[in-house]
Order: sequence, then structure tokens, then C-alpha cells
Amino acid sequence: MQGDERLGQAMEVFWERGYYDTSIDELMERTGFHRAEVYGRFGSKQRLFEAALRQYRENVIRAFVEPLARPDASLADVERFFHGICDRATAPKRRRGCLMVNTASEVSPHIPSVAAIVTSFLEELRGLLRRACVNARKRGELRPDVDVDRVADYLVGAVLGLWGLARSPAPETMLRHYVDGVLASASGPRRRGSRPRRR
Amino acid sequence: MQGDERLGQAMEVFWERGYYDTSIDELMERTGFHRAEVYGRFGSKQRLFEAALRQYRENVIRAFVEPLARPDASLADVERFFHGICDRATAPKRRRGCLMVNTASEVSPHIPSVAAIVTSFLEELRGLLRRACVNARKRGELRPDVDVDRVADYLVGAVLGLWGLARSPAPETMLRHYVDGVLASASGPRRRGSRPRRR
Repeated sequence: MQGDERLGQAMEVFWERGYYDTSIDELMERTGFHRAEVYGRFGSKQRLFEAALRQYRENVIRAFVEPLARPDASLADVERFFHGICDRATAPKRRRGCLMVNTASEVSPHIPSVAAIVTSFLEELRGLLRRACVNARKRGELRPDVDVDRVADYLVGAVLGLWGLARSPAPETMLRHYVDGVLASASGPRRRGSRPRRR
Repeated sequence: MQGDERLGQAMEVFWERGYYDTSIDELMERTGFHRAEVYGRFGSKQRLFEAALRQYRENVIRAFVEPLARPDASLADVERFFHGICDRATAPKRRRGCLMVNTASEVSPHIPSVAAIVTSFLEELRGLLRRACVNARKRGELRPDVDVDRVADYLVGAVLGLWGLARSPAPETMLRHYVDGVLASASGPRRRGSRPRRR
């Protein structure tokens, strides 16, 4: 396996088991990395984890925020984004949740360099959601007086809630109802009679 | 220290550090338990954790679900409940989040007996929120056609989102805006012109 494939394998192990429950022995067994390589290339388990988390952001998160990536993304794209997370979250491996959101709770209170990666992700996510709300307001899909900063904050929290539900033992219907509630809420400040355009 | 006080100390350690990052050595140092006692009384670190989690539910969660405990709890009580979590979550030790919600993500995918405790908590929470919605609907605070099962599922997810935000590096304003969004959404299916009664 190439180095990046093995880093991808390490990402999978951390995603499934979390940071603290993953031993160097398990990483070596499941990735093919040798101990000397882990320390030589990364310096420590923590640095390997940070590299895996960056790779997760680059590869996995890039795919799930794709609906929000277009500069003209609007309310229908926010809906696509949440339904996309819900589909991933209820797929067979759903119990893994999102490595970044798991890390926000498990690791970021203890390791500042990891908290910095999580903060940067939360800011990016908030920025994408805020831009979609600004676009929706301009198009009249949201009321002109809607506070896009508040809605963006709400939606970031909703993403954390959804991934939290996904990794918990909550039943799948709860995830679906949760997303329906979030989307009804996000489009609540919608102009009367206006529906978001679908592409 | 009495046994239960030491169990309370163990609860605090797990709450702050999580299950996997807490070693038996740290538990002994911070609780006064001796190794032989941990194994003699509880059998394993896992069983000690489960006892601490049950104590957390009994002592800490009982306090934070108090607004929903009255059989006639209604929409104003749901609001008090969420504002109460938000106040706890933004207090100086807020970065700890909620031990039960942290555990739902960190431990329950791996240990079925822990998942059972989390499931029981989620069901209790859902039941309390659902009852408050039924009462609110009866009183005309929610529209007569509102689906209380969907709203209850949404609100359970919202609790997980709020505690997830609390343990993440998200700024405090984000938590406040999130709660405002949740409450606006929960009372969205409210009858026009009706406001929940405050006691």
C-alpha cells in the first residue's frame, strides 16, 4: 500500500474507534505502518491522528459539503446537504458518525492543536451555510429581515446534533424526523408562498 | 471519603476525560479508590464506569430534566429545560458537555451494556418531551394537527446537538443562537397568537 492509502486506513480506524481507544498496535495491524515509520514520518500517534483528520476533511467532508460549494448555493442546496448527511448517517456503517464531529467532543477539549482543526472546520461550515442563507434571502426564499448569522449558527448546531444522533443508539426514524424538523425550521423564516428553487 | 462520594469523584473524572482516556491509575489518584477495591467492588473499569454513568443519570440528569418532570409540563417548560441546559453548557466547566451525551458517541457503539443505558436515557428524554408536546397541543399552544412524535424526535436530536456544541470549541453565541432556533422551531407549529403560559 502507498503511504496515503495507509493514512486512509488509519483514518478509518480512528473514525470507527475514536482517538483514545486506538492503540499504536491496532494501527500497525490494520494499516501496515511500522512503528518506526509512525514515529519517523509523523512523530507520534497524535500527529498521525492530525494527519488522518486533515485527510478526512480533504476527502470525506469535501464530498458531504459539496451541495454548499457553489457560490450561488441556496435553500434547496441546504436541504440537499442535510438529506445527504442523513443518507450517509443511516447507511450500514452509520454508527461511525462523522470523524470531525466525534473529535470535536472526544479530543478537542484536551488537545489544542486538534481543537484548532475542529474550529477551522466549524468556521468553514458556518461560512458555507451563511452564504447559502444570504443567497436565499436575496432570492426571496427567506424573509428580508431574517438574521443569517443566527440561522447559520443554528444550522451548524443542527449538523452536530444529526451526527451525534447517528453515532448514538437512537433509531433511524429519529434521525429522519430530526432532519425534517431542522429543515422546516430553517425555511420557517421563508417568505409566505415562496419555495426554494430546485435545480 | 464514603464509597458514593468516591463514585461521584470517578464520575467527574470520566465526565471530564471520557472513558477511554481515563486510566485506572488516574482514577485511583483522583478518587482515593484502591485497585483491589475497584476490582473487588465493581469487577472492572467498565463496570465502575457504568456505575458512575448511572449515578450521573440519577443525580445530574434528574436535575436538568426537572422542568419536564411535572405531569402537566408544557411548552414553557420545554423552553425552561433548553435554557437550563444552555446555562449549564456555557458555565465555566462547560467544555465537559454532558457525560451521557458524550458517552452516546464515544462508548455506546462499542459496548452494548453502555449502549443500553444510553438507549434507556434517550427513551426517557423522548417520553418527557413528547408528554410536554401532548399537553401543549391540548392547551392550544401547539396546533391540533401537530405530530408530537416527530416534534419529540426533533427535540431529542436538538439536545444532542446542544451538548455536542458545548463540548466543541464553538463560541458561546453559537449555543445561544442554536437554542433560540430550536425553540422557535418547536413553537413553530403553535397556534397563531397563542403564547405558552409561564408559571
